[in-house]
Amino acid sequence: MITKHTYGNPFNTEAVVEAVPNAEDAPAYGSVSLEKGFAFSYTMAAQDIVYGLGEAIRGINKRGHLYVSNCSDTPDHLEDMASMYGAHNFLIIDGEETFGLFFDYPTAITFDIGYTLQDKLTVSCEEADLDLYVIDGENAYDIVKQFRKIIGRSYIPPKFAFGFGQSRWGYTTADDFKNVVKGYRENHIPMDMLYMDIDYMESYKDFTVNEKNFPDFKAFVDEMKAQDIHLVPIIDAGVKIEEGYDVYEEGVENNYFCKREDGSDFAAAVWPGRTHFPDVLNKEAREWFGGKYETLISQGIDGFWNDMNEPAIFYSDEGLAKYKEFLQTYQNDKDDQIPFFAVQYLPKTLSNSPEDYKRFYHNVDGKMVRHDKVHNLFGYNMTRAAGEAFEKISPDKRILMFSRSSYIGMHRYGGIWTGDNKSWWSHLLLNLKMMPTLNMCGFLYTGADLGGFGANTTRDLLLRWLALGIFTPLMRNHSAIRTRDQECYRFENVEDFRHVIGIRYRLIPYLYSEYMKAALNDDMYFKPLAFDYPKDEMAREIEDQLMLGNEVMIAPVYTQNASGRYVYLPEEMKFVKFMPDGSIYEETLPQGSHFVKIALNEVSMFIRKGKCVPVVDVAESVNKIDMGTLRYIGYENAEYDLYEDDGISRI
Amino acid sequence: MITKHTYGNPFNTEAVVEAVPNAEDAPAYGSVSLEKGFAFSYTMAAQDIVYGLGEAIRGINKRGHLYVSNCSDTPDHLEDMASMYGAHNFLIIDGEETFGLFFDYPTAITFDIGYTLQDKLTVSCEEADLDLYVIDGENAYDIVKQFRKIIGRSYIPPKFAFGFGQSRWGYTTADDFKNVVKGYRENHIPMDMLYMDIDYMESYKDFTVNEKNFPDFKAFVDEMKAQDIHLVPIIDAGVKIEEGYDVYEEGVENNYFCKREDGSDFAAAVWPGRTHFPDVLNKEAREWFGGKYETLISQGIDGFWNDMNEPAIFYSDEGLAKYKEFLQTYQNDKDDQIPFFAVQYLPKTLSNSPEDYKRFYHNVDGKMVRHDKVHNLFGYNMTRAAGEAFEKISPDKRILMFSRSSYIGMHRYGGIWTGDNKSWWSHLLLNLKMMPTLNMCGFLYTGADLGGFGANTTRDLLLRWLALGIFTPLMRNHSAIRTRDQECYRFENVEDFRHVIGIRYRLIPYLYSEYMKAALNDDMYFKPLAFDYPKDEMAREIEDQLMLGNEVMIAPVYTQNASGRYVYLPEEMKFVKFMPDGSIYEETLPQGSHFVKIALNEVSMFIRKGKCVPVVDVAESVNKIDMGTLRYIGYENAEYDLYEDDGISRI
Repeated sequence: MITKHTYGNPFNTEAVVEAVPNAEDAPAYGSVSLEKGFAFSYTMAAQDIVYGLGEAIRGINKRGHLYVSNCSDTPDHLEDMASMYGAHNFLIIDGEETFGLFFDYPTAITFDIGYTLQDKLTVSCEEADLDLYVIDGENAYDIVKQFRKIIGRSYIPPKFAFGFGQSRWGYTTADDFKNVVKGYRENHIPMDMLYMDIDYMESYKDFTVNEKNFPDFKAFVDEMKAQDIHLVPIIDAGVKIEEGYDVYEEGVENNYFCKREDGSDFAAAVWPGRTHFPDVLNKEAREWFGGKYETLISQGIDGFWNDMNEPAIFYSDEGLAKYKEFLQTYQNDKDDQIPFFAVQYLPKTLSNSPEDYKRFYHNVDGKMVRHDKVHNLFGYNMTRAAGEAFEKISPDKRILMFSRSSYIGMHRYGGIWTGDNKSWWSHLLLNLKMMPTLNMCGFLYTGADLGGFGANTTRDLLLRWLALGIFTPLMRNHSAIRTRDQECYRFENVEDFRHVIGIRYRLIPYLYSEYMKAALNDDMYFKPLAFDYPKDEMAREIEDQLMLGNEVMIAPVYTQNASGRYVYLPEEMKFVKFMPDGSIYEETLPQGSHFVKIALNEVSMFIRKGKCVPVVDVAESVNKIDMGTLRYIGYENAEYDLYEDDGISRI
Repeated sequence: MITKHTYGNPFNTEAVVEAVPNAEDAPAYGSVSLEKGFAFSYTMAAQDIVYGLGEAIRGINKRGHLYVSNCSDTPDHLEDMASMYGAHNFLIIDGEETFGLFFDYPTAITFDIGYTLQDKLTVSCEEADLDLYVIDGENAYDIVKQFRKIIGRSYIPPKFAFGFGQSRWGYTTADDFKNVVKGYRENHIPMDMLYMDIDYMESYKDFTVNEKNFPDFKAFVDEMKAQDIHLVPIIDAGVKIEEGYDVYEEGVENNYFCKREDGSDFAAAVWPGRTHFPDVLNKEAREWFGGKYETLISQGIDGFWNDMNEPAIFYSDEGLAKYKEFLQTYQNDKDDQIPFFAVQYLPKTLSNSPEDYKRFYHNVDGKMVRHDKVHNLFGYNMTRAAGEAFEKISPDKRILMFSRSSYIGMHRYGGIWTGDNKSWWSHLLLNLKMMPTLNMCGFLYTGADLGGFGANTTRDLLLRWLALGIFTPLMRNHSAIRTRDQECYRFENVEDFRHVIGIRYRLIPYLYSEYMKAALNDDMYFKPLAFDYPKDEMAREIEDQLMLGNEVMIAPVYTQNASGRYVYLPEEMKFVKFMPDGSIYEETLPQGSHFVKIALNEVSMFIRKGKCVPVVDVAESVNKIDMGTLRYIGYENAEYDLYEDDGISRI
């Protein structure tokens, strides 16, 4: 049962799409104080687990840290970070009392989950204008399913999006892209998507393609498609200020950009230099911006990723002017009154500055709303702009879409990737932990940059990470410019990569089925073990294994130089290893703890007792999967409900 | 057997103090190329383990990363970092072939240990002037013992240094310090040392004490001693440029500071503002600087920590002038030719700039040596300055000394702490992994900032970290200014901290015995499991447990919200838990893997089969330990060789 508690005058985020009755009473759990803004407090029992927060660092159990939902362009993902790109204010307390909480509030909100005091949960925000949903249920899993129902069905991508994709910031010319495809196809490493980061554009202008590098873009898209490669261009939030550029001109003319208090268009520098932000909270502007995707769709593009939509700001006109003023003062400071640390630190503060988020406004149904009051809704509505437009531009066919920034509600329009991680072993584990937590908040089509975006990867890290990525709906290898080349064919013994990625394709019938069932039933694709084994104390504590769908448990290796790992089986299971020689090793292991050996070039998973999993032969693209080779592994005489469709029609 | 291979004209680092015969032949392992500087290459077998590198990030097995020995002031300790504060160029390859390597080279040297290619080890440096020691031995442990013998006996601190110490950057007045002591003593949390970070000084001037804050410093030191508290002041590398300040005046007058090429004293800003660096590679200057510690020793001080001795540089005169020039250009750049990223990034590059390390010289036996050619020897020789002086100033009594920067050889004069870590769970595990590796290189008195220096700790992280810190010779809680208060009495349920730290004191007879045996026998205090169980495949792979001395294995919990952890026992052992009620839980566990429960307020360890460990009753300071309460836990009828001395006389 869900009750809605309204405080003040909430902004309508449209996160919740089902009617929920308004409660007259105070929430049944904890206490609310309106003395200073809004604060919800609850005393946790020692063994209570706190689930939720979607895209956030640290554990599946969020206890023991302070988190702030405040969409941020933050490339480091360090253990002490409070904010990431998304704002997913959904929590479950699971223990002595079990209940869910959704704080529908459009800007910064703080979750002190046993940080200040180990047993105290406090959720607080500056203004007491929000809807608090309190969810009662049988257990944590049931609460998730109820919550997922009121926020609407999760986004469903085309089936090709379950293939493997390669990306790198720095691919610029058609030849750059062709060479990557060549590297994969010649080495027979399966692949379906090739991502186009910012350099495909003309001067980083949204919805343009550099004509010098792509003299006939449509032909290039077709040529790639002929090889079963879908090009997936990036779209950034900021629209370049440039006379004659249609998107800019139309936006200015129709007041579709975010404005300063004085009514002028707010300018902030991002990749293209000075830009305006499309006012995606303004319905008309949203329709207009979404319509722009047609430029690329009409050339054969069927997938996009939305980036820089927190929105990220390198600096604003105002910020830069103030900095230049400071520099003048500094240069006149002949007797060293200004500490050098200030000089050193200051230029960093120009980027993504809270001051700048107070400098522009959205037109929401005719009312000017200052950005910082609704900050967490920008990425959501940019992606919604696209999603709503796709239904018109491409009424029959699904379009691939995922975003960096998000809010709950955006899960209906696209997936997310987990942003600019690093080539760190700890981020492989973080990737795993974030998956079920995102599922709780509706984000099913999701994954991390495999191999790591920033920093330099190593062959073993990439192999181990791919062996997790095989199971994430979005499976993409992505890396930053100036880092080590990270395409799979760049490393020695390329057959290991061929094998590991090949297993993804062998499992697509299963992964796609489980994804579709999760999406169509408001269910989870990845679950913490505790959701399937809520009475098993050990299962409740496991943070490095996941349940996948109804048949599989995964337990990837995430430490360097390890020949295997400990794994806990809440019940008897079949330990499956896809061996480099193409064979499938199956061993029945009893309930309990085991140390299992998994080599760098093996892919492992566990099949639950009495269940089976469909596998097919390896194919080099989703399109080439031969369903005639389908067979089942796991327990004999088990039944499996295979989901099949054409993989592209809207559902 | 050790052979020495000399290339070119090595700088005499004095790391090795025993005579080692010069080999005529090439090294028996790998190959050396002198084509471009120096490069040693070796092809590793798949299962080879590479040990070594002392203070370095990542695993006990160093395979799979690129490391650079290049002493750096680096506060982040991220997974992809190449360099830390120390330079410890000792490696062991343990596998198909087993041998040790020590590259005695005084500046930057790169270790590609399976980074570029998984099976390739390459050690390279710019100039082919070095001594390469190649060590053959029965196994990795034997190789360590041989190496330790040629580099001389490890530093031995006074026994009080095995107590618990509290530190925080920000303690300024006598009252600040007294309040901390009060917090500990009133809560009956044992404590022996109180560290004084930079704010005790007068304007950050070495060997001064702020007279306003400490009107009678000697009386204050005595007052603390009366409570069994040893004050341990910090000494920084840079000497403030200030007319009338004796250290500055003497240094200038006698040419004891590092000089520019033109003979003027090199100036670099650090905490005190502009400073000169004492030329610790100049024997006379080293004697003079070491003698300065007497100023504080004569007031009752009996311990120090040397900091900022990479040496860290905020900016140099030259660097700042160049930056100001750039700012002028930037301000004149009306048409935005200079990318903002350059503006944003540049001020960071002023600190610890390689350019600055080329701007000053050492006087080595009358020869001017540019600093960048001997960069890794600065911290070593600063600490050597102190250590050599202590023998004269305090010929009978040991003085506590540890340093941030180091080179092998410095281990004879002091310990090290592992620098500015963070309040991250991953750094708890990093702490554990670094310990045996440092022991291999001679650094026995060592430990990390418990609870984490940067970022905000939590109660549970601090408790878990203390439960590891109990076993590290240096046990210190230290935190940075502007982070959350981290003294143990700041948290709820202070009795848990009292109990956990109390266990340190119960174990001091054992820990001190094992430390002294390790120091006197050129042995290790902490060992990887593989050193005691070299034939055990599983033991060889364990990276989160350590052998301590000859009786104990430790396996601390290093993940949040965990009730316990997996542990591997290479043989039957007694699982010991020191319970909050004062009792000692003992359970015999068979060889193999176990999941053991360890609560936040319990301290656990394992006693090896047939061994026993001495324990005493809790005391609030080392001085108050009652040896009359000594008894043994572990296996019955076991014998233990207890080491005892007065804890202060030089040995």
